[in-house]
Amino acid sequence: MADTNKKNIVIEVEPIGKRLVFEKPQNGLQALLDGGIELKCVCGGKGTCGKCRILMLENSAPAATEQELKVLGRDEIEHGVRLACQQIFDRDIAIYIPASSLTEHQKLQVTGAEADIEVDPVVKKYFIELKPPTLSDMESDFSRIKNALANSFKTDVNRIDYEVLKKMPAELRQNSWKVTITLRDDEIIYIEGGDKSASSYGIAIDLGTTKIAVLLVDLNTGQTIGKKGAMNPQISFGEDVMSRINFAMQDSANAVKITDVVVEQINKTINELAAECGITVDDIIELTIVGNTAMHHLLLGLPVRQLGLSPFTALTDSPVQLKARDAGIIISPGAYLYLMPVIAGFVGSDHIAMILASEIADKAGNILGIDIGTNTEIVLKTDNGMQSVSTASGPAFEGAHIRYGMRAASGAIERVVIDPDTCVPRIQTIGDKKPAGICGSGILDAVAELLKAKIINTRGKFQPQSGCLCVDTNGGYQYILEPAAHNNRLNCGKEKAVSTTGLKPGNDSSSAINHDRGDMCPCLDGKVSINQKDIVEIQLAKSAIRTGIEILLESAEISFEKIDKIVVAGAFGSYIDPKNVVDIGMFPRVSLKKIIQVGNAAAVGAKMALVSKSLREKAEDIAERVDYLELTVFPTFSDHFAKSTLFPEPK
Amino acid sequence: MADTNKKNIVIEVEPIGKRLVFEKPQNGLQALLDGGIELKCVCGGKGTCGKCRILMLENSAPAATEQELKVLGRDEIEHGVRLACQQIFDRDIAIYIPASSLTEHQKLQVTGAEADIEVDPVVKKYFIELKPPTLSDMESDFSRIKNALANSFKTDVNRIDYEVLKKMPAELRQNSWKVTITLRDDEIIYIEGGDKSASSYGIAIDLGTTKIAVLLVDLNTGQTIGKKGAMNPQISFGEDVMSRINFAMQDSANAVKITDVVVEQINKTINELAAECGITVDDIIELTIVGNTAMHHLLLGLPVRQLGLSPFTALTDSPVQLKARDAGIIISPGAYLYLMPVIAGFVGSDHIAMILASEIADKAGNILGIDIGTNTEIVLKTDNGMQSVSTASGPAFEGAHIRYGMRAASGAIERVVIDPDTCVPRIQTIGDKKPAGICGSGILDAVAELLKAKIINTRGKFQPQSGCLCVDTNGGYQYILEPAAHNNRLNCGKEKAVSTTGLKPGNDSSSAINHDRGDMCPCLDGKVSINQKDIVEIQLAKSAIRTGIEILLESAEISFEKIDKIVVAGAFGSYIDPKNVVDIGMFPRVSLKKIIQVGNAAAVGAKMALVSKSLREKAEDIAERVDYLELTVFPTFSDHFAKSTLFPEPK
Repeated sequence: MADTNKKNIVIEVEPIGKRLVFEKPQNGLQALLDGGIELKCVCGGKGTCGKCRILMLENSAPAATEQELKVLGRDEIEHGVRLACQQIFDRDIAIYIPASSLTEHQKLQVTGAEADIEVDPVVKKYFIELKPPTLSDMESDFSRIKNALANSFKTDVNRIDYEVLKKMPAELRQNSWKVTITLRDDEIIYIEGGDKSASSYGIAIDLGTTKIAVLLVDLNTGQTIGKKGAMNPQISFGEDVMSRINFAMQDSANAVKITDVVVEQINKTINELAAECGITVDDIIELTIVGNTAMHHLLLGLPVRQLGLSPFTALTDSPVQLKARDAGIIISPGAYLYLMPVIAGFVGSDHIAMILASEIADKAGNILGIDIGTNTEIVLKTDNGMQSVSTASGPAFEGAHIRYGMRAASGAIERVVIDPDTCVPRIQTIGDKKPAGICGSGILDAVAELLKAKIINTRGKFQPQSGCLCVDTNGGYQYILEPAAHNNRLNCGKEKAVSTTGLKPGNDSSSAINHDRGDMCPCLDGKVSINQKDIVEIQLAKSAIRTGIEILLESAEISFEKIDKIVVAGAFGSYIDPKNVVDIGMFPRVSLKKIIQVGNAAAVGAKMALVSKSLREKAEDIAERVDYLELTVFPTFSDHFAKSTLFPEPK
Repeated sequence: MADTNKKNIVIEVEPIGKRLVFEKPQNGLQALLDGGIELKCVCGGKGTCGKCRILMLENSAPAATEQELKVLGRDEIEHGVRLACQQIFDRDIAIYIPASSLTEHQKLQVTGAEADIEVDPVVKKYFIELKPPTLSDMESDFSRIKNALANSFKTDVNRIDYEVLKKMPAELRQNSWKVTITLRDDEIIYIEGGDKSASSYGIAIDLGTTKIAVLLVDLNTGQTIGKKGAMNPQISFGEDVMSRINFAMQDSANAVKITDVVVEQINKTINELAAECGITVDDIIELTIVGNTAMHHLLLGLPVRQLGLSPFTALTDSPVQLKARDAGIIISPGAYLYLMPVIAGFVGSDHIAMILASEIADKAGNILGIDIGTNTEIVLKTDNGMQSVSTASGPAFEGAHIRYGMRAASGAIERVVIDPDTCVPRIQTIGDKKPAGICGSGILDAVAELLKAKIINTRGKFQPQSGCLCVDTNGGYQYILEPAAHNNRLNCGKEKAVSTTGLKPGNDSSSAINHDRGDMCPCLDGKVSINQKDIVEIQLAKSAIRTGIEILLESAEISFEKIDKIVVAGAFGSYIDPKNVVDIGMFPRVSLKKIIQVGNAAAVGAKMALVSKSLREKAEDIAERVDYLELTVFPTFSDHFAKSTLFPEPK
């Protein structure tokens, strides 16, 4: 008002919808960090690590800097991708921050991008005031309510929950015939005294093999008012789906136990979330859950033997709706649990939710949708329909089967950049803690960087002549991921002697250290590293995914150049660096701008089906339309798999 | 074959569908008794008691005998009614035996007349053979079944019982993919190995305040293959509806108890009936129950407080269907319990079932439908629709509140005829046992006969000058119902002295026996009799019913002459003698041929809704169409009631 000449600079930050306002121009990285956006920054703002990628929206991208030209791909630059650290924010602009540019911590909070959803849930609350009955008006309580609802809201009630019916006479009479009715389709599922129509909440859950993501949603506005994650406690009965199925198959007590623990955890998380948001569980009038087929069956206490034995069929792939109480879940007493349909034994409803949330089904063009996990589900949508596969990519991207692997927790190396000249790595750990191990995105980065620096060849073999490898206690080569250790190593006479001679490790008695005696090079002591076996694990994992993609393309008879978009969903999918994913050949070499990371799209899909009746119907329609393709019976499966274990030549 | 000249005589006996075959002509009464038809016979076949009425079908009635002309009404004779004892069966004929002509024992077995029902139940079993899944055909178990049913039987399955789903994989695999599926509308409710499509049964129950009638029905043929009756064990918490409501209202433990006992009794009876018929309870795939609104609510464990307090509203009058297991009833695990809609707090689904079974709703003309009980429900169907009332006729017709009253059990006097000349009664007891008391039909007979013999006047007062009364210990008059005692009485000097003097009882010191001292006339010792208070009870009961009829007629603006038919339903309704009912003024003086006794029409209606989907829909349609009329707020209620307590002048 006072100084109209002084114009603030406004930065619109998508997809989180934040507005940052400055009085004077700022460095982009600093401005975003100051604004609470936890961008990655491995190189300290020098423009060399290339991790703080942002997308300039609305043609506001300035010419690329020299550093950007060096670090970013040409198609990225053309697409408007820039590095935040290379920008000066001196004008009103809008930017988009890909999930892959954010640190782990913030990504956990930012679930998938949510499309605009028209709020029209299957459940709705109605406040009504009734005339009490008299000897001249002896209508039954239930009919009285039905008629009042029909008159005031044009509803068509046909059914009522049995437990609600029992409470009805007392609720009506104790509340002077002023009550709020919760209606689900044509069924009354709840009755409360007074006007409670504003308290209308639902829960959407992505029930993962590892993590459970729980969203609390206001069903009047469609807003997510609270989120909470929890570990899936079934983990104590087996890390992966198959070991849990085996556990449940052993005896019926096991089957009951594995169902009970997850139901208990869901109840606990819902309870905590409700308490944090100041509502009661009775205010929660609908629950939508998505998950893989095993999680789906185990949650409901359905038999899983047929899921664990060839040909691995689901018991049911239909949408399931049942009273939440019948599944042991405690929300509003008459409320329903809705489970989206699954597609096959290894393609669950989380896949459908992902397709729904990322709007793959109805967009034009050829679109791949990928949700990377222990099993990676991939859909290819073409003009001829949708086909999905499930591929056993294994747990390497979750840090399992990797010597120093760990989950994406504090201290995990999540980003790796290797200087091709010195072969010294730069790393970023979650929470900037001392390295404790390496998580999936870090391993993927490391492999891509090792390839680029020619420390490994296209067959994945360590190249000792690179002069930056150590020998581990088993006598194999390894690459140390901690920069300080590298500096030490260079000052480590013994090890330097070993590595510079290009010595074949493990069987050379002329080595300065005796590996047969189990000698450890001092520089290795407790340091996080990556060895040959780790690389093989990544080769198998990425080959599985690439094989799935290739067979989908082959089945649809299109070449990878015809792919218009690759939607990468899931927690891990949003941490990975798309460039590295292409560089190691996990994805075909498409233009990077075609790769869209959508975060936890499964949770978003679950929410969409919670908030909108028509989107729920759409999910069911998607399930009908997706064809399942069994990879292992596809004739070219083995050929594709063998070929895909190789890495592409570095560009 | 050998002797073609020798032609047997064939008697078709309706409605029980029995064929009796004789080689030579027989007396009608004897022939029927020999054939196992337990006709009443008070006079020993002399044609004086008029109890063995039969209806000659197809114009086969011979001219009436002198005795028939004396005992039967003119319109009865015109209508083809004759006395079995007066007939000679010497040709092939068809006869119809009204329930009122049968002894109690047989009537309990012969439930109401059943109209021809097109068999089309809501549940049906389908046998299917499936192809097992392979890696090239990984369809889920549920989808496999859905598609097989759709292909073979054009069904549309959308839902499956949760418990059935759990059993599905094992049932399929253990039975080589050959299974029988029970489908209810669009829901799979049962799965069995092998072809069980022939084993398809349902249960229909008339849940009365006093008795529970259970029918076991073959759902493939519509045939009732077994019947069983049981007492309603809730009787221990109160004889009538209102005392049970009060018991349930006292505390929640009572409410649970009163529901539990009846559920337990239903389970027990179903179990016994299934065992007797050689089936298992798992073969029972649908259950239909009708009953008054209190029985309906108490069965479901619904609150009844609002039913017990003015304005006596039902909690719900909608049709209810729920899993039988949710109501605690053990039949096929996924089977449903269907409860027909009720109309109001005191007009239950038994009334709708009666209207359905007796086809009142859609027949032309003005029809009254009456189900006599502690509460008597009456419907009047005219061209302008249907109106129903409930009238508190009290328990007198069930033997309660009557000094020697008893239920219709062994030893109960069920028929009474009084010789107008000697004033000596002839009686028939159930099971031809020594009289133990008198049941409803006996009391009704007794009152009508006392009126006809002018032993009581039109105000119901004993007329001592009739010379056949005794004085009881309370000093009031009474009429002894045991013939032998009458004969003794005539030889009892003391008592004869009292009665022939026309002595006003109880205060005459000149009496040969001292009533003030509590002397009892020896002839009364333990003899069943009827006293002034008993007659007042009957006056009140019949007045309540007549008042209901009168107000329905008044409300519909038609006179009783316009009534085309009176359908009398219920156990008691089929025991009563229609002539006596008209003679005491319980019904208006319509032509007797307009009175049709249909037996337990409520049970038949329940069966109809079990066997036919369209009849179930019709029952729901009837419920919508019937208007409830509250008698007590009708302006002329008191006038009608007072007037109706009087008896008509004997004809």
